[in-house]
Amino acid sequence: MDIGFIGLGSMGSAIAANLVRAGHKVAVWNRTPQKAQPLVEAGATLAQTPAEAARAGVVITMLADDAAVESVVHGPDGVLAGLPQGGLHISMSTIGVELGDRLAAVHAEHGQGYLSACVLGRPPAAQAAKLFVVTAGAADQIARAQPLFDAVGQRTFAVGDKPSAANLVKLCSNFMLMSAIEAMAEAMTVAAKGGVAKTTLLEVFTGTVFGSPVYQLYGEILAEERYRPAGFAAPLGLKDMRLIGVAAEQLRAPMPFLGVIRDHLIEALAQEGEDIDWAAVGLAVSRNAGVQPRSGS
Amino acid sequence: MDIGFIGLGSMGSAIAANLVRAGHKVAVWNRTPQKAQPLVEAGATLAQTPAEAARAGVVITMLADDAAVESVVHGPDGVLAGLPQGGLHISMSTIGVELGDRLAAVHAEHGQGYLSACVLGRPPAAQAAKLFVVTAGAADQIARAQPLFDAVGQRTFAVGDKPSAANLVKLCSNFMLMSAIEAMAEAMTVAAKGGVAKTTLLEVFTGTVFGSPVYQLYGEILAEERYRPAGFAAPLGLKDMRLIGVAAEQLRAPMPFLGVIRDHLIEALAQEGEDIDWAAVGLAVSRNAGVQPRSGS
Amino acid sequence: MDIGFIGLGSMGSAIAANLVRAGHKVAVWNRTPQKAQPLVEAGATLAQTPAEAARAGVVITMLADDAAVESVVHGPDGVLAGLPQGGLHISMSTIGVELGDRLAAVHAEHGQGYLSACVLGRPPAAQAAKLFVVTAGAADQIARAQPLFDAVGQRTFAVGDKPSAANLVKLCSNFMLMSAIEAMAEAMTVAAKGGVAKTTLLEVFTGTVFGSPVYQLYGEILAEERYRPAGFAAPLGLKDMRLIGVAAEQLRAPMPFLGVIRDHLIEALAQEGEDIDWAAVGLAVSRNAGVQPRSGS
Amino acid sequence: MDIGFIGLGSMGSAIAANLVRAGHKVAVWNRTPQKAQPLVEAGATLAQTPAEAARAGVVITMLADDAAVESVVHGPDGVLAGLPQGGLHISMSTIGVELGDRLAAVHAEHGQGYLSACVLGRPPAAQAAKLFVVTAGAADQIARAQPLFDAVGQRTFAVGDKPSAANLVKLCSNFMLMSAIEAMAEAMTVAAKGGVAKTTLLEVFTGTVFGSPVYQLYGEILAEERYRPAGFAAPLGLKDMRLIGVAAEQLRAPMPFLGVIRDHLIEALAQEGEDIDWAAVGLAVSRNAGVQPRSGS
Repeated sequence: MDIGFIGLGSMGSAIAANLVRAGHKVAVWNRTPQKAQPLVEAGATLAQTPAEAARAGVVITMLADDAAVESVVHGPDGVLAGLPQGGLHISMSTIGVELGDRLAAVHAEHGQGYLSACVLGRPPAAQAAKLFVVTAGAADQIARAQPLFDAVGQRTFAVGDKPSAANLVKLCSNFMLMSAIEAMAEAMTVAAKGGVAKTTLLEVFTGTVFGSPVYQLYGEILAEERYRPAGFAAPLGLKDMRLIGVAAEQLRAPMPFLGVIRDHLIEALAQEGEDIDWAAVGLAVSRNAGVQPRSGS
Repeated sequence: MDIGFIGLGSMGSAIAANLVRAGHKVAVWNRTPQKAQPLVEAGATLAQTPAEAARAGVVITMLADDAAVESVVHGPDGVLAGLPQGGLHISMSTIGVELGDRLAAVHAEHGQGYLSACVLGRPPAAQAAKLFVVTAGAADQIARAQPLFDAVGQRTFAVGDKPSAANLVKLCSNFMLMSAIEAMAEAMTVAAKGGVAKTTLLEVFTGTVFGSPVYQLYGEILAEERYRPAGFAAPLGLKDMRLIGVAAEQLRAPMPFLGVIRDHLIEALAQEGEDIDWAAVGLAVSRNAGVQPRSGS
Repeated sequence: MDIGFIGLGSMGSAIAANLVRAGHKVAVWNRTPQKAQPLVEAGATLAQTPAEAARAGVVITMLADDAAVESVVHGPDGVLAGLPQGGLHISMSTIGVELGDRLAAVHAEHGQGYLSACVLGRPPAAQAAKLFVVTAGAADQIARAQPLFDAVGQRTFAVGDKPSAANLVKLCSNFMLMSAIEAMAEAMTVAAKGGVAKTTLLEVFTGTVFGSPVYQLYGEILAEERYRPAGFAAPLGLKDMRLIGVAAEQLRAPMPFLGVIRDHLIEALAQEGEDIDWAAVGLAVSRNAGVQPRSGS
Repeated sequence: MDIGFIGLGSMGSAIAANLVRAGHKVAVWNRTPQKAQPLVEAGATLAQTPAEAARAGVVITMLADDAAVESVVHGPDGVLAGLPQGGLHISMSTIGVELGDRLAAVHAEHGQGYLSACVLGRPPAAQAAKLFVVTAGAADQIARAQPLFDAVGQRTFAVGDKPSAANLVKLCSNFMLMSAIEAMAEAMTVAAKGGVAKTTLLEVFTGTVFGSPVYQLYGEILAEERYRPAGFAAPLGLKDMRLIGVAAEQLRAPMPFLGVIRDHLIEALAQEGEDIDWAAVGLAVSRNAGVQPRSGS
């Protein structure tokens, strides 16, 4: 399939590489074009503008936040301008529900299709084409995009007709991750102050009913206080918590766990700086219990 | 092994039955002796007092709360009076850290051994001898008790020398369960108000990184709003949250998720009465979002 | 003084009337011009556009939210276009810190002055010229505006050189109000369930160390469950809590009380609809305790 | 009147001195009798046991916590044993609602009267006989005690027939105090990080609608970070928050502000040690925002 791909961060680069590998003709664009070099060497072509990438007829965007997505969509060089009538924009970025709704509307006005297709998984999963794809939108557009999803993920979940449903599910998923991290951090801290090692507690949790990847992966990070380098940076985590908070406010659904999580992310950022992993809520939790972090963490 | 067994609720009866089945000689005692009937038919003997049950030399207690445990331990007919020098009290009840410490001390004063050995799992797991046993205390006493643990559980975790460490781990585990339930309830509610069915969200969670029994089991309960009859009654859940709160206060470890959980348990009890499952925090969460419960739930 | 005045809601109308009464020449503008009628009868003139109002040289804006302020500032008919070089824009609206900063910057670029001058008090205080004015900006501009502040308020607080400092103080003040309301609601609810009437509790509070207008005024509203008609509508209160939340996030300052307040505002809106007073957090608090609201409240 | 007075801490000593000064015959008892010396010099007599103090017919207890009260009430040397039939026990201590109920019941069984009569105010107010007395119980007993209340306080509030109602009101009052402190701490911290001095914010608050003693007194403590020596020690504050929490749980009334307050008290104690004032929640709040405390505070 001829496709454009916009946004070559660590997630985007890995996804685009898998699309090239699967035999698709991929025109890539990135704000700093140097990042495109490895993909061009692998067979991708370099687009000069987002519009040019979108001319392929199907274009994927994978960017850091709402502002970045808006900046490539609008304007004479943007996706809206370049995408042909009948074309399809697949937004993989973790953006707000409101922006998801606005993108759906504006593409419809232009006679273009739009899907939200958020991905669950970290860069290693992206490289291994083992992401989970959570998508929403018109069934025929999902069918059209399925070969692309198959090239980058292990399973696709279609969660509704309204594209922003996928954004909502993705934000809920990140909220659930942060909730599991916070809960483990609180449990590990009280247990450690009571004489039970964090690793002992983790062994019990993962050896019994909590044996899922989320507890295993983040439990180890918390037990080892391994918050740098950031696997998923706390400012991005805080951005996602803000976005689910905006949705919760608009949908009139209180989320008290969210308030706790946001405050601990803010606390970790205030005390540690911006380069820390979102799991560093664990650092806030233990500091609040009077436990100093290990040196180097 | 000759053992006494005190406390024949749904968990205690199932555990005692497995001990009989494994060939141990079990003298049972319960405040209302009728509950002992099936066990006596299965080969257990009926003790007239806790002291008489304790005379076996090894005695297990499995009771509802701190007060119930204290009532069978002290006094002329109590465990302390009946247990021989060198005997062993194994406390399986979910009690507070402080009581665990006091029991360890008082048994030591009497020349008796003491283990906390909390169990993870609900009645069906108890019946199937598939519990997880979390124990703490002197290594030689744990070795002595191991055949009993093997008869009732699938795996034993030894979490420290101080018996109350097992109580702390058990309380942390219940806190983690409630945290997972609360997080799912908040996510499901905001998603449902945004047009994504609870079952759809659950399918995404359990199909990706949250695929552990806790999310599966409680996710279904939440999605179906199946809060009666109670599998684990909310007042007992609230009792456990109070006990971990007492430990957290004494150990000087703040636990903000715990505050949210306690408030939602109290809210569910205030609105629904005392016969509801602890997962009914989900009912509080959706009511707070203006969503009325399904009739009958 | 020749001034323009933009925004004739209940607060703006009362303030503008006092400016006319004090002898200033006031050109008023409102999106729906009918609201200007009483002021014109009192001696004001009617401007056709925000730009025309700003031509007076000093212009006050008093609008509902950030979007309303931005809509009158920009564009060919906007304040920026109409205000002469050396003119002064005094923003009285409760807007975000970020917008305060942007307005200061954009007016500076245009060679115009800018003050944030937020007001504390409800419509009756505005009518009586008894508002408190919290202002920030260049000292000479504050001196220039002082006669206007004196015409509408009982006291002026200058809180800094940076105009947005006044916005921050105003948002903090509304957060403090909501905190006092929430605290009283929680205390009254637990006391009432324990057999102590809300009015009895209030009598103790206001008769001892809590004897300030905020406890008196809102204590009575809570005790009487008088949430309609709204004195200050819950959606506006929620907007202000969102704005202080945005500032807290950017300044990296956790505010856990704020999370509770936001959730209770959302809950009250979800259960009661959008026309309720912000004190209706009291309704959420008592519902969560299983207490049904009085009919009619 | 002939009275006994038990408990000579800083509050008790000041209250007893005012009773002596008002002409009452006071028999004092304290666990460490040295503290009675100044009172004996002022005209009090020294009782050898709580029972002996109670023989006066009316006895006041003013002790640190539930356990201290229970220890002077029961046993052969206790208040119950010494107080004549028809005698009256006036409990001024800040104790739990449950203990208030139990004391009322046990005194009734002994044919003795019982009042809870909690006091609001700090030691300087006690010395100046300017306390507020919050009492509950039978009207004739309150009338009987009124001359004593008049000797120590500026005003009496009778809040119900059930004595423990006074304990509930007192605990609510301390919850309200902590809520005001926490709210100010959060507001001052975000304002300070935004460039507005704490003292400026306080000036606005107390100069407008928050002008009550609680904001003035604690606002200054927070602005000056004056947390040592403790005016009211954080462990006692935490004890009171635990007691209102127990009441809230039993009455089925969620109190989310309480969770925040308890966590910040625990945090301050974990980080600073046990000798700090309860206003040190302000220290927790600013640390969580990455602001280091002033040296010496």
